[in-house]
Formats: sequence, structure tokens, C-alpha cells
Amino acid sequence: MTTTITCSQLSPALGDLEHNLTMTVAAIKDAVEHGSQVVVLPELVTSGYSFATAAEARAAGMTRNDSIFDDWIAAAAGAAVVIGGFAEVDEAGTMFNSAVLLDPAGGRTFYRKTHLWDREKSVFAPGNELPPVVPTQFGAIGLLICYDMEFPELTRHLALAGADLLAVPANWPLLEIPPIGEHPAEVVIAMSTARVNHVAVACCDRSGEERGQRWTQASTIVAADGWIASQSNGQTLISAELDLEASQTKSISQRNDLFADRRTDLYRLEDAAEHD
Amino acid sequence: MTTTITCSQLSPALGDLEHNLTMTVAAIKDAVEHGSQVVVLPELVTSGYSFATAAEARAAGMTRNDSIFDDWIAAAAGAAVVIGGFAEVDEAGTMFNSAVLLDPAGGRTFYRKTHLWDREKSVFAPGNELPPVVPTQFGAIGLLICYDMEFPELTRHLALAGADLLAVPANWPLLEIPPIGEHPAEVVIAMSTARVNHVAVACCDRSGEERGQRWTQASTIVAADGWIASQSNGQTLISAELDLEASQTKSISQRNDLFADRRTDLYRLEDAAEHD
Repeated sequence: MTTTITCSQLSPALGDLEHNLTMTVAAIKDAVEHGSQVVVLPELVTSGYSFATAAEARAAGMTRNDSIFDDWIAAAAGAAVVIGGFAEVDEAGTMFNSAVLLDPAGGRTFYRKTHLWDREKSVFAPGNELPPVVPTQFGAIGLLICYDMEFPELTRHLALAGADLLAVPANWPLLEIPPIGEHPAEVVIAMSTARVNHVAVACCDRSGEERGQRWTQASTIVAADGWIASQSNGQTLISAELDLEASQTKSISQRNDLFADRRTDLYRLEDAAEHD
Repeated sequence: MTTTITCSQLSPALGDLEHNLTMTVAAIKDAVEHGSQVVVLPELVTSGYSFATAAEARAAGMTRNDSIFDDWIAAAAGAAVVIGGFAEVDEAGTMFNSAVLLDPAGGRTFYRKTHLWDREKSVFAPGNELPPVVPTQFGAIGLLICYDMEFPELTRHLALAGADLLAVPANWPLLEIPPIGEHPAEVVIAMSTARVNHVAVACCDRSGEERGQRWTQASTIVAADGWIASQSNGQTLISAELDLEASQTKSISQRNDLFADRRTDLYRLEDAAEHD
């Protein structure tokens, strides 16, 4: 059985919730019409990214009860899981760079980015919980947001927790041009993450320009073998059909298993809470 | 200050210790004549790789006191650190897939591969100690052997322990042809390892053919920024001049540091011995 995964590399308008609502609903409908069963939207797709102040971000803040999630679920028409980023404000007024996973079966799972990038640190509070792995009818989906993926402890944690697919809403700021022939560094990291954990990875970057900031625009879906299944070369919608069950075997040779071969007698990766 | 790093992608002859001694001594001399200060040789370069039986491997086994290491030190003429792999036999007759680091200052540091690949498991015992980080006049060098590098816990451990360079003797068996335009998977992993840890990585693959087994022949030196500084396209000797001190800063933006950003309140990577 294969699962059709889509990344919608949208260009949200900064602070324009209404525009972004219309845009994301249309993108989800479009993806589902193309047969998508897992739709990944960018980080902060409801709000845009380049806030000058915390107050500006707060004006674009949403609670977990925001009606946009009902609209996304309706747009998915029972056919697809939707993952996307939003600027979350909690009851105390604290802002988080968050993502939601909406399951057509009704579940809603939230995650607050735990590794904040650069000026996000002056706008958002970091999340204080490890990312979830959400069982869905299409497989177990682990959530990460952008810079989170650069921490191998976190990607390993999700793989060990049973993730078949890492869904990664991202805004990859264009900070360097890769050497000729090379993928952007974020893509190299996604490929390696897939390979060493034998897990699929779907990174949804954004497009557009915002206050002079441009984006890498290289959304990439990587299969569990570490090779790219689909990559944006500027186009908004990319899709790949992946066998997500393949992520469940960690066997890579007759005598090797990526998880069983870990030398847990020599090193241990643990949830910090486990032995506090 | 830069350090000139060389990988010598040699083709050892299976079981022919004398041939491999002559070949490695010549390679070290050649590298030093080319200005190399860190010379990385392949995994099991003294013995070859494709042993059919443990007995065959044992016949090519060497102790830590083998005179080949004196010959390597002499060949380096006080100018270079030498790292290379050998088939180690201990006093009890147990075989290990080992590497040595020879410092011109006189130090000899050994490491036994902790993650064995495929049929190595029927020939070698796994090492039971974490790899070392060896301070040298050129910087701190962490040791890994081939498949070890695919375990992010281990590469992170070496980076956290202060490694400026990961020296990785390898024999990358040619198991798959990468998709067009892609590096071999091992190279992708090396690039990502360098990038997420801001540490240089020098992987020395081997060449030749042995009992039908061919090799990827893609020795690669990666700078701490994650981009390839030098890569073999079939040639034996590759070199790169790297600023190894650059590995000591983990700062990657005005507000981001790859180590400080780790959420050790949420996850912990520890030596297993630490809390046993």
C-alpha cells in the first residue's frame, strides 16, 4: 500500500489571516483532488514569518480552538491528514511557533517548536514538550518544525517512537547558495535523517518574499531509503507516493538493523524526564 | 591556521601483510611530501577486507605492538598524524576491526569498531569502548570506522567531546548506484554529520576489487560547514586544507549555537556508563 504525500509550498501574506485562510483551504482542496492523503503545509502558514515585534506576531496569533482548523478539516473532506504551522497564543498570551496535525478520524494533535531559529527567539517561547508521533490510518506521523530537524537526538527520538513519516513544516530562509550541484543543506540533512533512521521525511518549505527575506523553496519528500522522491524546483505543489510501511523495518543488510545495531550499552538517548 | 588533510584511497591485497606494509609506507611518505599533516588510510588497510573465515582473518591479525606502526611513524617523519585501520588480534586471540592514530609527538591511540557491518560480525568481535577524541598539534581528532558514522549518537558524542575532525577509515562496499546527480549515501551522511555538529569529517574509502566485492571509491573530506572540500573521483590521493579551529565554534547565526540550542531538558545523550 502506498500513501500519497503532498507538500504545498505556499506564500503566506504577513499578518493577513484572512488571505492565508483562503489560500490554505484552496491548497488542501487542490492536494486532495490530486489524490493526496497527507498534506504538509509550511511553518507559520496562517501568519507569515517575518514579524518585527512580538506584538505584531501576537496580532496574528491563534488559539488551538481557532475555526481555521475546522476549515482545513472540511477542505480535506475526510480523505487526508493535514499538517501545518501557525502562530499560537495561549491563555496567558504567550506565543509559540506551533504545528497541528488534523486527522480525518477527528483527532487534533499540537506541537510547539522546541528549537527556535534566530529572531524567533525574540517573538516566540520555545515549546517544552518533545514532539508527538501520531498514529493515523496512513501510518505513524512524527512532527517537527524547521530547525528542529537539525538535531539528530530529536529525529532519532521520533524514529524510535515509531514514526513512519516525519512531517516538517518549514520556512527555510535563503542564507547561502549551495555549491554547484549540491542540494541546500537542509535537504542534505533530511536525506541523511531518512537514511540513518529508515524513515520517510516530508519537508514543506514556503515561497514568496517577506520584508526582504527570501526562501530556499526546496520542499522535499525523501523516502525511507534516503533518496529524494519529489522536490520543488519552484513549483508550489509536490507529491510522492511512498510505501510508509517500509519505514517499519530497520533491516539494511542480512545482518544489520539500524536500531538493533545501536550500542545502547555504550550510549543512551533518553527523554530527559525518564530519569529525573 | 589551516591543516592539510589527506585521504589515501589505497587498494590493499587480501592477506598480504608485506605488500600492504610497503604500499601504506609509500602512501604516507607521498602524502607528507605533498604537505599533508593528517593522513587517513582505509579501514583494514593492512589486511584487506573480504575474509571468508575467522581463521583467514586471524592469519592477517596484528597486535597493537606490531612493527608496522613504527614504520608508519617513520614514514610520517614527524610531520603528520596517521590514522589507519588494521585487523587486531588480542592476547586471547579475539579479532577486532580496529584503527590506530599515531601522533608524531609519540602517542598511539587505538579504537575497536563498535558497529560491525554484515559479515564482519562472523569474523570480528565488536569493540566495547566509545571511540576516543585525541588531542594533537593540529586539533582534536575523533576516530570512527565506516558503519560507525551512520549512528548519530556516536558522531554527536565525538563532537560534544571536542572533536575538530572526525577521521573515518572506511571500506564502503558498492551496494547501490545512487540516483543520477546524487552522492553515495555515505557521503550524504558525512555531509549532514559535519553540518549538524559543525565538525570536519574525513572519510577514507578503499579501491580495488576483492573476491568480487567492489567499493564506492568516494573518499570525501567535508569542512565543518557541511560542504565537500575534496572528493575522490577514482584518484587515490585527495587533500584539503581546512581550518580545524573553525570546528570549535558552534555558532551558526546571531542567536543560534548548535550545541547550546540542544534541549537537554527534553532529551539526553549520555555515555551508558555515566548512570549505570
